[in-house]
Amino acid sequence: MPSVEGSGGRIDAYAAIHSGRQLERYRYEPKDLAPNDIEIAVSHCGMCHTDLHLANNDWGITAYPFVPGHEIVGAVSQLGSTVQGLKLGQRVGVGWLAGACSVCDQCSSGQDNLCLNGQPTCVGHEGGYGTHVRVDSRFAFPIPDGLSSEVAAPLFCAGITVFSPLMRHVRANMRVGVIGIGGLGHLALQYGRALGCHVTAFSTSAGKGNEAKRFGADEFVHTATPDALKPRASTCDFILSTVTAGLPWNDYLSLLRPGGKLCIVGVPDGDVSISPFPFILGQKTLVSSVVGSRAEIRTMLEFSARHKIAPQVEVFPMHDVNSVFDRLAANKMRYRGVLTNHH
Amino acid sequence: MPSVEGSGGRIDAYAAIHSGRQLERYRYEPKDLAPNDIEIAVSHCGMCHTDLHLANNDWGITAYPFVPGHEIVGAVSQLGSTVQGLKLGQRVGVGWLAGACSVCDQCSSGQDNLCLNGQPTCVGHEGGYGTHVRVDSRFAFPIPDGLSSEVAAPLFCAGITVFSPLMRHVRANMRVGVIGIGGLGHLALQYGRALGCHVTAFSTSAGKGNEAKRFGADEFVHTATPDALKPRASTCDFILSTVTAGLPWNDYLSLLRPGGKLCIVGVPDGDVSISPFPFILGQKTLVSSVVGSRAEIRTMLEFSARHKIAPQVEVFPMHDVNSVFDRLAANKMRYRGVLTNHH
Repeated sequence: MPSVEGSGGRIDAYAAIHSGRQLERYRYEPKDLAPNDIEIAVSHCGMCHTDLHLANNDWGITAYPFVPGHEIVGAVSQLGSTVQGLKLGQRVGVGWLAGACSVCDQCSSGQDNLCLNGQPTCVGHEGGYGTHVRVDSRFAFPIPDGLSSEVAAPLFCAGITVFSPLMRHVRANMRVGVIGIGGLGHLALQYGRALGCHVTAFSTSAGKGNEAKRFGADEFVHTATPDALKPRASTCDFILSTVTAGLPWNDYLSLLRPGGKLCIVGVPDGDVSISPFPFILGQKTLVSSVVGSRAEIRTMLEFSARHKIAPQVEVFPMHDVNSVFDRLAANKMRYRGVLTNHH
Repeated sequence: MPSVEGSGGRIDAYAAIHSGRQLERYRYEPKDLAPNDIEIAVSHCGMCHTDLHLANNDWGITAYPFVPGHEIVGAVSQLGSTVQGLKLGQRVGVGWLAGACSVCDQCSSGQDNLCLNGQPTCVGHEGGYGTHVRVDSRFAFPIPDGLSSEVAAPLFCAGITVFSPLMRHVRANMRVGVIGIGGLGHLALQYGRALGCHVTAFSTSAGKGNEAKRFGADEFVHTATPDALKPRASTCDFILSTVTAGLPWNDYLSLLRPGGKLCIVGVPDGDVSISPFPFILGQKTLVSSVVGSRAEIRTMLEFSARHKIAPQVEVFPMHDVNSVFDRLAANKMRYRGVLTNHH
């Protein structure tokens, strides 16, 4: 393992001091390393639309100064006294959660991502847009050798967010739809294919058809075409919506076969409104999923390495964060932006 | 087995000739008995709110003349040439479906209740408000000796509608909520208790508290009280809504623990509208259920007999159907009305 420089108790980061996506240089003193914590010297950090939503306090949960970043890869630079299973210098990744209580019903049943006292990595805690980050060591995951750091980083949020519901709800040969071919969707196509399913991509961007098929889609539906959905009634077993736009929910529910499930992982604008009669008569389900448990993250990393599943990334120096944030806000990233301190 | 008189090709029934709940005497010639069909001499038929909705064509699917009734109990009065496993005179019951295709993906995977070509007992087919009914023999179920006919009849729709989702989604010791303590809800309380769960009844009728506890509820919540739901946030694993009223859906979703499920089996007025942020963050699920498969109906009958689960019924002569229909429409039935030809 290489020797890795610790923060020395001072971390240089980028933060939104007030609401809005303009980030400034921001130096902070991290809290003391708890016995089970580690410090990580950040090498890469993926950029998620959630970072933008949080910068703007769209969900009313942001704490300022806000240091974004919850798709973190780096090397262990400091170990708390009781940390198990990790070594100094080891390459690890951190996702949405930097800690959880470890004792509640959710934690004790392996659903730590649902812990009501979980500590999000960049809500009330400084995230990965900086030189270092300190987290509960149980939420730092060794990265398989087959995954480069720039490819691994987005797996910790975009990857697990789509892998977890597919793993839980999908069986071999199912017909799976993916709505939205962006940072999450282009990974969902790859996972769906690798899980042995027939995969249909739904996108408002006609130009993404060829790339969607390269990522694993068997079919591509350009949803901006009038009546694009109608001929596909009752053809999908499972549909994953990765978009934050409001959708014609009843139209998409009509694509499900009887007993089928529509899963939302993107947070849509406005309410999700459903006509109950066809929903009940078709015994349909609206399910949701939020990142994934520690066990699911480990499975996702191993599965991704074995199946050579990788996000298509654009890598930028960390100090260009503001111009890259603008690019993300303009939906121009193909398909995931990653910041690096190694440039 | 007693000898049972067949229809002789003429069935006396009650039908809504046009839209509305006024029923008239109606004699019809049933279709010829297909090789796998049976005829049943109806002894009892439960009354479901769906019969009222269909009489009024509330869902736009009614065929007139409309003979209601899909909670049928009676004795086999005629056997088609290829019928297996049933005998003349045997006591059987029929629920929402009188037939299904038997070859589609749903039928072949044991989900015949989701068959897209299923034949509802009283939509485009004459139901059980009459002397006889003819159905596909695969959808007629022998009734365990422990269940009287008047008690068995409502199990074929009200019973299976609540038993099926509980059986599929609930595990021992879960905290289960039941919204609406009527024909469906008072059975759901009994099943929830028998499945080993902690059961909470939610009702707008304060007066149903003692009866709800007698049916099996551990707790009773009078939902017409202001802020009745607030102290119960994150306390339920599974909530079953049996009502047809619109509900404050987000308030009920907030009662679910992380990962919890809200199941709707009553068809609510208007759309079901959900705020996506807390839904996704809590990884919650909106699920639905429509009656039950043949295998689930067999299990429900055996389970009901073993656990002595029985609807509380009011029994009326079949010829009083119109006044009893009025009583049902006024929500005065405690808790399920049953018509009988044996009076």
